[in-house]
Formats: sequence, structure tokens, C-alpha cells
Amino acid sequence: MKYMKLSKNYKAIVSYDGSRYNGWQRQGRGDNTIQGKLESVLEQMSGESIEINGSGRTDAGVHAKGQVINFHLTTEQTPREIETYLNHYLPKDIAVKDVEVAEPRFHSRLSAKRKIYRYHIWLGKENPVFARKYVYVPKEQEIDVAAMKEAAKQLLGTHDFKGFSSLKKVKKSTIRTIYRIEFFLQENELVIEYEGDGFLYHMVRILTGTLLEAGAGKRSINEVKKALETLNREDAGYTVPPEGLFLEKVIYEDSRNIM
Amino acid sequence: MKYMKLSKNYKAIVSYDGSRYNGWQRQGRGDNTIQGKLESVLEQMSGESIEINGSGRTDAGVHAKGQVINFHLTTEQTPREIETYLNHYLPKDIAVKDVEVAEPRFHSRLSAKRKIYRYHIWLGKENPVFARKYVYVPKEQEIDVAAMKEAAKQLLGTHDFKGFSSLKKVKKSTIRTIYRIEFFLQENELVIEYEGDGFLYHMVRILTGTLLEAGAGKRSINEVKKALETLNREDAGYTVPPEGLFLEKVIYEDSRNIM
Repeated sequence: MKYMKLSKNYKAIVSYDGSRYNGWQRQGRGDNTIQGKLESVLEQMSGESIEINGSGRTDAGVHAKGQVINFHLTTEQTPREIETYLNHYLPKDIAVKDVEVAEPRFHSRLSAKRKIYRYHIWLGKENPVFARKYVYVPKEQEIDVAAMKEAAKQLLGTHDFKGFSSLKKVKKSTIRTIYRIEFFLQENELVIEYEGDGFLYHMVRILTGTLLEAGAGKRSINEVKKALETLNREDAGYTVPPEGLFLEKVIYEDSRNIM
Repeated sequence: MKYMKLSKNYKAIVSYDGSRYNGWQRQGRGDNTIQGKLESVLEQMSGESIEINGSGRTDAGVHAKGQVINFHLTTEQTPREIETYLNHYLPKDIAVKDVEVAEPRFHSRLSAKRKIYRYHIWLGKENPVFARKYVYVPKEQEIDVAAMKEAAKQLLGTHDFKGFSSLKKVKKSTIRTIYRIEFFLQENELVIEYEGDGFLYHMVRILTGTLLEAGAGKRSINEVKKALETLNREDAGYTVPPEGLFLEKVIYEDSRNIM
């Protein structure tokens, strides 16, 4: 009797330094994307054609500490062996951890309940020699964090965030819920952490630009709320660059009380 | 009466990410060294031919947070203006701070009393995606920090460190004093801090390799002391790679009690 190998659904967590990649999403064979690199190594390992689902597409230059992926694979290797193989053959700016067999219906994007992003703003007087690829050096000279916090309160909750997105033509819903915006002052850095049920294209970067304008005294509380009402991109703040942005964590549990 | 411009002696502190440079010391015109980059920008600013003294030569791939330089310049620009000019035109992986006019006889290398280096060893289970250019991932699997501390005690004080150097032919004295070796456990990293009156070529990297061998149980206390007695390079440990090494600080005061 012939042995039938069954395909399993694998889940894993991926960290990457997005600096030298054209973003997460594969555009074609052999392109310089994170999805492309991961698929190549898995195909090399298994001989199968692999398609990886990511929890979301990160743009060129955006980093991740907790991107979640899933993929189907017919292998007798253990999850631990798959993880070791991946980390051996992947470039040093991509790393995989917590490879495990998931429920057959688990899908890293469709099953995601919430996402946490962090944006790193450099406040140091000196140029960020060692952090230069992981922070944004703002054009704003003086930043009032209390004013940013006050502005952030306006953005919490469920709104139509169409005005906070760079998508030109929108077919799907642009309504999202932001559960939490927190500010951390670290050595030379202001970190803004956003937790929501999902984020539109460029949304975290436009939210951050809007908050920075509020922190610099260039945008009143009413002007922060305006783009939520008019839904016009022009009424929101500027788009901060990708290098300060990290996808920190994707949450699949339903409870909102686990933080 | 013609106004005579006088040359002044300037001192400054330089940070750099050594990853993409062929070390500190200029080899020729337009080469890819940190000294070369700094001299080019100063020459562009002043129109003068500039020679910079560094407190010491760092190897290719070695970083600095507190390299100290001095140079003579005939300019009417203030130190603050020189600093702004440098930081504007230098690559983003080199930054200058604390530019000031120094005593005419101040020399960043000859006046230096002590130097502090740090070596960063990665202990995390995952690959160091974001720190990958600033840490060494050791081949040793299990590291006993208590054993490393015990071994470090043998190296303190004044010794002939010829065996802990890669220099083949040595004309100058190879006697140095190490005042302090301290260990810090940071998130995922073991940092070893060395303070001494000077360090020979590759000395910090060989000291670190020797301590790692002690920490991995591959080198006894007597074997740590051996190279101090035989003065043979073969009796010391291996040379750890440059990327974990940082020149932290150069001290010009005489007192040993200022830490």
C-alpha cells in the first residue's frame, strides 16, 4: 500500500530588517521581497511549490519583529527541523521562530484579530549612527508629547479612516478600530505603539505624521479630527517614512483583555 | 596691516558604524576609511590640507561611540559651525559631536591616558536580525559567565601582553595595564568592558576569545595565565571577529578615581 503524505498547515513568526527589501509581498519569481526569500528557501527544502500567507503586507523599508505566516507543506521534517533549515539558509536580516503545526483552517491574515505596530522617532541631538535604519529623524524641532497624547485620544475607537490612507480607489470597508495608542520614551527615542483590528495602506505612517504635527503645534485637536469627518487624505498629516515602522505582533485570540 | 589667521587645534568626539569601512586609518587618497571621510569633508570645508589624529586605529568592521580626534585648522567658523558642517556632509554612519578648541599641545593619541572598549556577545536563541552588525554570535553553546569573570581576574594589572597581540614584529613595548574588566548582561547580550592604558593590535579581541574559551570550559585558569608567561600568541585564545567591538571612550585626565 502506498504511503500517502498529508499536507500540514504550518505557522511561524518572522522577524526582518526591511531596509534592503522591496517590502513583504512577492511580485514575481526571484524578486527582492521577504515573502519571495522565504518561499525560495522552503521550496529548496521541500521541492514543492510553496505559497506563504503573511498577516499583512509591509512596505519597502518597514521592519517586523512579529510578522506571522502560514503555509502548507508535505514533509516528514519536524517543525524544529524546518525552523533550523530556514534560519540556516535565510539571509541574516530575516529570522524565523516558533514554527508549529497549526489548525488546518488557520490563515495568518484572515484569522488575525488585532495587530500591534510601533513607530520609532529619534529625539537625540546627535545623528543616530547605529539606529539610523530603524528610526525616523523628524523635521519637527520641538515635540510636545503631552499634545501628541491629547491628539491620539481623538483617533481611538471605531472610525472610517479613509482620510488616513494612501489608497486611491477603495472598494473594501475603510472602517477600523484603534484600541490603544501608547507612548514610550526610550533612550533618545519616542516610540508610539498602535493596537487595532487592522490598518489601511500607510495608515500608521499617516497617523504618526498627524500626531507629530499636533506635537509640533502645527495642528489643533479639531484639525486632528477633521480627516475623520471629511475622509479626505488632504486633511490628515504627512506620511512619515518607512524606516521607523515595526510590525510588532499579530494577535489571534478573541479576547480584548489579554494585554 | 594684513590680518593673520592663526591655526587652532580642534578636538572632537566621533561615533561610527565601522561595518562598511576599511577601518580608521587612511591608506591613500579617496580610500574607504573613517579618517579619510573626515579629512575629505574638512578639506572641502576649509580648502586646507587636513591631517586628523585619531586616539587609536580601529580595524575594519570595528565601531566607535567615543573615538577622539584632533586636527589643526585655520578658520573663522565656530566649533559649533564646524560640527554642523561635518554632520551635514558626512555619511549617515559617521557622526561628530563636542567639537571644541583644545590646548595647542593636545594630541588625541599621545595625550590619551586610558581607553575603554566594549565587546558585545549575542546570547539570544534567535538570530540577531537588528543587531547583526553589532554583536558576535559565539560558536560556544554554553557560556559560564562566572568562569569568565574568574579568568578575567588573571588578566588585570600590568603585564607583557605580547602573547595577546597579532603583531608579528614588535619593536615598541608590549607592556600594558588593564585596570578593569566588567561584565554586563543586557537583553540577549553579554557585554565585556575593558579599561586600560592602551591596547595592542587585536588585543581586546584576543582577550575576549580567551575569556570565551574559559567560559566554555575549554581553558583552565592556568591556561589563561599561560600566554602572559610564555608571551606566545599560540598560548592565548582565538581572535573574535571585529563586529562586536566598540571603542567606547578615551580618557585624558590623569586621575584613576573618576569612574
